[in-house]
Amino acid sequence: MEEQAEMVGRAFVDHYYQLFDNDRASLCSLYQPTSILTFEGQIIQGVDDISRKLNQLPFDQCHHLISTIDSQPSAFAGGIIVFVSGSLQLQGEDHPLRFSQMFHLIPKLQGAFFVQNDIFRLNYG
Amino acid sequence: MEEQAEMVGRAFVDHYYQLFDNDRASLCSLYQPTSILTFEGQIIQGVDDISRKLNQLPFDQCHHLISTIDSQPSAFAGGIIVFVSGSLQLQGEDHPLRFSQMFHLIPKLQGAFFVQNDIFRLNYG
Repeated sequence: MEEQAEMVGRAFVDHYYQLFDNDRASLCSLYQPTSILTFEGQIIQGVDDISRKLNQLPFDQCHHLISTIDSQPSAFAGGIIVFVSGSLQLQGEDHPLRFSQMFHLIPKLQGAFFVQNDIFRLNYG
Repeated sequence: MEEQAEMVGRAFVDHYYQLFDNDRASLCSLYQPTSILTFEGQIIQGVDDISRKLNQLPFDQCHHLISTIDSQPSAFAGGIIVFVSGSLQLQGEDHPLRFSQMFHLIPKLQGAFFVQNDIFRLNYG
């Protein structure tokens, strides 16, 4: 179970930030109407509002660099919890921003997962 | 639902770090045999091993200072996800350590919750 969680977590993280950095509009495919995002303390619900929020963030080009990925099975939901730390380099900014983010992935059909819970925080030093 | 999650999350965080800082041995009451802790990348399962790990951390006195608490309902598990950022002051150390931690709380009888998933990471600058 732990190994499967780690494998899925790693693949999800690769996919998520690759989309975020290169094709942010496509992130909507990873959320569902039940999904919740808390972005720097702001709670946003449902795929439409989450997609709008992510696409209207006040920067265009960015690059996520991942430092750690911790994944666990989410026993009572049949899902996987993924906890990420890393840094976010914005175009034109000198210093990358450190962040932490967690995802609660829930299975849908055919082995795919969607993001039910997503919490993002910048780490202020 | 979101308000209840925030209320429970806040009360849990108060309780958890109060125990951690003042009566660490009692933290075992918050875990169950199914619980999983990932502590700085090390996976530990079950209340006994988690309790042993927390009690054998290489410091005695410590003080957690909480910066942010983000809570969400965990729809498919009937639980609550709590995401914490803060700093950890160890006795005799000059500089506090920044950390991020997430808890997946699952209800047991009589309105109480236990920690099913717990992931802890220090934030290196």
